[in-house]
Amino acid sequence: MPDPALLETFPTPTDTPFTIEHIADEFTSLCPMTGHPDFGVVVVRFEPRPGSGGGTCVELKSLKLYLQSFRDEGIFYEAVTNTIRDQLADLMDPAWLVVRTEWRGRGGIRSNIVATHGDAPDSECSRPSGQ
Amino acid sequence: MPDPALLETFPTPTDTPFTIEHIADEFTSLCPMTGHPDFGVVVVRFEPRPGSGGGTCVELKSLKLYLQSFRDEGIFYEAVTNTIRDQLADLMDPAWLVVRTEWRGRGGIRSNIVATHGDAPDSECSRPSGQ
Amino acid sequence: MPDPALLETFPTPTDTPFTIEHIADEFTSLCPMTGHPDFGVVVVRFEPRPGSGGGTCVELKSLKLYLQSFRDEGIFYEAVTNTIRDQLADLMDPAWLVVRTEWRGRGGIRSNIVATHGDAPDSECSRPSGQ
Amino acid sequence: MPDPALLETFPTPTDTPFTIEHIADEFTSLCPMTGHPDFGVVVVRFEPRPGSGGGTCVELKSLKLYLQSFRDEGIFYEAVTNTIRDQLADLMDPAWLVVRTEWRGRGGIRSNIVATHGDAPDSECSRPSGQ
Amino acid sequence: MPDPALLETFPTPTDTPFTIEHIADEFTSLCPMTGHPDFGVVVVRFEPRPGSGGGTCVELKSLKLYLQSFRDEGIFYEAVTNTIRDQLADLMDPAWLVVRTEWRGRGGIRSNIVATHGDAPDSECSRPSGQ
Amino acid sequence: MPDPALLETFPTPTDTPFTIEHIADEFTSLCPMTGHPDFGVVVVRFEPRPGSGGGTCVELKSLKLYLQSFRDEGIFYEAVTNTIRDQLADLMDPAWLVVRTEWRGRGGIRSNIVATHGDAPDSECSRPSGQ
Amino acid sequence: MPDPALLETFPTPTDTPFTIEHIADEFTSLCPMTGHPDFGVVVVRFEPRPGSGGGTCVELKSLKLYLQSFRDEGIFYEAVTNTIRDQLADLMDPAWLVVRTEWRGRGGIRSNIVATHGDAPDSECSRPSGQ
Amino acid sequence: MPDPALLETFPTPTDTPFTIEHIADEFTSLCPMTGHPDFGVVVVRFEPRPGSGGGTCVELKSLKLYLQSFRDEGIFYEAVTNTIRDQLADLMDPAWLVVRTEWRGRGGIRSNIVATHGDAPDSECSRPSGQ
Amino acid sequence: MPDPALLETFPTPTDTPFTIEHIADEFTSLCPMTGHPDFGVVVVRFEPRPGSGGGTCVELKSLKLYLQSFRDEGIFYEAVTNTIRDQLADLMDPAWLVVRTEWRGRGGIRSNIVATHGDAPDSECSRPSGQ
Amino acid sequence: MPDPALLETFPTPTDTPFTIEHIADEFTSLCPMTGHPDFGVVVVRFEPRPGSGGGTCVELKSLKLYLQSFRDEGIFYEAVTNTIRDQLADLMDPAWLVVRTEWRGRGGIRSNIVATHGDAPDSECSRPSGQ
Repeated sequence: MPDPALLETFPTPTDTPFTIEHIADEFTSLCPMTGHPDFGVVVVRFEPRPGSGGGTCVELKSLKLYLQSFRDEGIFYEAVTNTIRDQLADLMDPAWLVVRTEWRGRGGIRSNIVATHGDAPDSECSRPSGQ
Repeated sequence: MPDPALLETFPTPTDTPFTIEHIADEFTSLCPMTGHPDFGVVVVRFEPRPGSGGGTCVELKSLKLYLQSFRDEGIFYEAVTNTIRDQLADLMDPAWLVVRTEWRGRGGIRSNIVATHGDAPDSECSRPSGQ
Repeated sequence: MPDPALLETFPTPTDTPFTIEHIADEFTSLCPMTGHPDFGVVVVRFEPRPGSGGGTCVELKSLKLYLQSFRDEGIFYEAVTNTIRDQLADLMDPAWLVVRTEWRGRGGIRSNIVATHGDAPDSECSRPSGQ
Repeated sequence: MPDPALLETFPTPTDTPFTIEHIADEFTSLCPMTGHPDFGVVVVRFEPRPGSGGGTCVELKSLKLYLQSFRDEGIFYEAVTNTIRDQLADLMDPAWLVVRTEWRGRGGIRSNIVATHGDAPDSECSRPSGQ
Repeated sequence: MPDPALLETFPTPTDTPFTIEHIADEFTSLCPMTGHPDFGVVVVRFEPRPGSGGGTCVELKSLKLYLQSFRDEGIFYEAVTNTIRDQLADLMDPAWLVVRTEWRGRGGIRSNIVATHGDAPDSECSRPSGQ
Repeated sequence: MPDPALLETFPTPTDTPFTIEHIADEFTSLCPMTGHPDFGVVVVRFEPRPGSGGGTCVELKSLKLYLQSFRDEGIFYEAVTNTIRDQLADLMDPAWLVVRTEWRGRGGIRSNIVATHGDAPDSECSRPSGQ
Repeated sequence: MPDPALLETFPTPTDTPFTIEHIADEFTSLCPMTGHPDFGVVVVRFEPRPGSGGGTCVELKSLKLYLQSFRDEGIFYEAVTNTIRDQLADLMDPAWLVVRTEWRGRGGIRSNIVATHGDAPDSECSRPSGQ
Repeated sequence: MPDPALLETFPTPTDTPFTIEHIADEFTSLCPMTGHPDFGVVVVRFEPRPGSGGGTCVELKSLKLYLQSFRDEGIFYEAVTNTIRDQLADLMDPAWLVVRTEWRGRGGIRSNIVATHGDAPDSECSRPSGQ
Repeated sequence: MPDPALLETFPTPTDTPFTIEHIADEFTSLCPMTGHPDFGVVVVRFEPRPGSGGGTCVELKSLKLYLQSFRDEGIFYEAVTNTIRDQLADLMDPAWLVVRTEWRGRGGIRSNIVATHGDAPDSECSRPSGQ
Repeated sequence: MPDPALLETFPTPTDTPFTIEHIADEFTSLCPMTGHPDFGVVVVRFEPRPGSGGGTCVELKSLKLYLQSFRDEGIFYEAVTNTIRDQLADLMDPAWLVVRTEWRGRGGIRSNIVATHGDAPDSECSRPSGQ
């Protein structure tokens, strides 16, 4: 079950602006209709709040364990994307956050879902993981 | 015959903004002039209306069956694109919608057609399916 | 000789906005200086005027024959591009039109020429044919 | 229904050895179990018998029409491959013949089938269409 | 738990020689040391025995379910590969069989394992899934 | 009209073994049935006879002019390939010679033709121009 | 020595807006510190002034000879880029001009330098030569 | 230990606008948690201040030695990126500066970090090193 | 210092033939002449001896630590390759072993070194890591 | 002028079999007919004689300087290839040696030349530099 308690943070190490992008190429969950596995890529992009204002960043290993917690979950593409967006936004309260999921698809149709939090730059929303 | 009655929806699962992109790599219809098959890719991108306002999203399997219903249809590239745009816009009344078709072409000319509904971001209109 | 009389049109099938892109991968003409063949790609992108206002679109097969009519013509890269732009703009009076030619080049220099008509979006002008 | 009567030949134009490879990137048939469309690539490679001995080669346009005749046929991958191999072997009696089909697949599994007639070189059997 | 009882066969539809290659791009199992998921590609290549001699081929959907049965199994790369080789060889008694697994790897090292049964051609053993 | 008189040679500059490969990416001729242009790549590979024995190699610029002489010729794929093979073999009497043509194709079918003279190594016959 | 006297122009053939891009893949100069050769790609993009206002375009063969004149010059990356920008701007007085150089690099660091003249569109400045 | 004393500059050779991009494909440091090596790409993009105003550019060989000084340093991805940004900004006081690091990743997650100084164009921040 | 004591083995899990390929994309050592870091890829391919005869396979994590032990070693390309070959051959006494190193190179020259032990198939020696 | 005196060797560091491949991506010489620069890639592959028998290998930096000595030489493709083959064979007396040159070409024709010394494996002769 997606478990946000697995997520940990560290204080943003600076007050000057920077962005972080994590690309998890090995995501899998289950289709809630058929029980068959879904495979995809999860991209997380965000600008953390400044460290002096209490800003935090998600810790990488905890993000990995959190994403692994979807492995046995029957959950739709949209729910995966919105859940990760909501739980990471709650965790970090970032300046902005983009969660993009890219699914290998079924029946000849591939799907990509993008959920945003805050005022993310356009270029961060429309850029695929391959770039 | 393109059959919009095949299309089904589900309620938008959230009120926070997100976008959906479906890429059907295996589309085929018939040329109305020659009867020869045309092959192409159909990309559907949209931002659904918020769930609390009655917004809906097209269901993936029903989209697949709908696209398959063009298989025996003699229809021009432009009509395929505009028909899908119109029928999906009628179905979902989305915040915006982009339908892009990419055709393998005939006689050494490949064609791409893009039809929009509502105020779609520029980056969603000009980006090919390959990205 | 480039022959615009080969070009035919059909009425724009809708009044909602859409764009068309034709990519001819197999274009050849002759260098007017040396007589040697030039090889390139011709990309035509446009937004037709609405059908209810008498808008038209260039017919695909007639475009192919028109582009083949440059085969024996001694003509510079710039003239190919501007000629196609002018003759298609005259034919369709589109909302906007972009003609991009990409040449395999000579002596280690490849060249790309872009000619526009009307107020074409920036992204339509700078995007190569490969995308 | 796959119709070998659509196939035509022309006499092998020489007695010196040569090989022919035709790659049809736009093949579609139907799954006999589900009725859903299958999409694939069909590669035909052969060495014709010498023209002085009555050797013939399949004519390209007739091959295209023949492959299109599978469009509404419910047929397994293996049967597509073996049927094309058998009907082309009957037609041409070539020195050797390789038919390779490459399927976009279903449920995350892509399949490639290779059927041979006569003593085809190893390199002709194992080389994918992409090369 | 890898469950060979999930595998089904159909009679080889011909006595003329042909080969079958199935490429499962979405395989996952668990590392028996750490419990972390492993992700890989499984390639199965074989030449079935002739149908008149009782030869059989593995059925595609049953192969998919069989490969999914490794999802919760803690198992080494080598054991995945050898287990699939042994269980498919038992099932079909093919003329030859190659099982190749390609793992995304850990700690900067990717691994590929190839197990064979019978006298497989060299080119079938050394060719990666990407070709 | 294909004109072998355009071809020139130079004496093989050595007696030690070497091979030459010329790849013409910009070949065009005409379809003898429809008059429409065909576009392709012509690959010429050969091992010249030793210089001390009177061996010669085709001169590069003359090869270019010779290939350009097909521009207005209505000629089938097979005839292009066999004609070039025969005229170059006559010109150079090489140890072996491979002529491979790769055609962009028509109606969704690409074709590659390979003609050989003498005892060419297998790897020279089956390797595409892209490698 | 870089020799702008090698550069020639022709009158801009039209008053309607268009842009020209020349990509020289085979540029070489010498490192002024070590004397070792540097290799790179030089991209020249510009919008010429209208022909009726005396606008001119650089002639392609003269550009090639001009770029070759850097072959024996000991000159830094930045100076190559700024010199070409200045000398082409002096030559043509274009509406805008972008010169981009892409260097294969030394010691594991590749470098790209972009110099502009006039008000060049952003997309012309940041796009690499590969696109 | 990252040693900014290794960095050297040269005066900006012009007052006209230009930008410099250095891409170091071979960067390595150590993970401060595990001591295992991290591997990545470091991209440095900047617009130097005009030479007449005392502007300077980082010298390429000194940048290489500076980046090598991270080899034995236990340091997080974010700290690598922010340290390089801060030390190069201190060194050059550029009009703007972007430092992008792209890490091969661990446990199936790749990370990219972007730190900026001054008012960098959006396109300079979001473009990967591969372009 | 390269430390073979870091290497561990496990018993070959079967007596049926199979091969293992490990590809370490993140190898670095030091040039013994200049002290500058070298970066490369190390490919290890082998067929283990059968388990019933005491055959063993190198354990993956120990291989990673062993390869990391070259990080501070001043050592030539050839010595890296031969050392790994010799120490792995001593460890496992495999049926055959191929060690291939691919170096990013210096001064515009990339190098690949291949060392073999026992009677390795040709296809295992000449195939790059990219495949 | 190509200067073999620039070449240096070091003793083969082992008696066990291994091969070396050097790929120089930045080779340039001059066309003896036109004086225009030619650009290409030079690949050198060899198996050195065993060290105990006095075998030697070409030293990498000396090879770089040697290849640079062709920069101002007017010389044909074939002569470049055969000269390098002969001078390296004289230098090292290797078990076998392959020199492959790949030229960017002129007038739409790219050329590859391969010269061998001794009994080189077929796979070493026909493999391009890109692999």
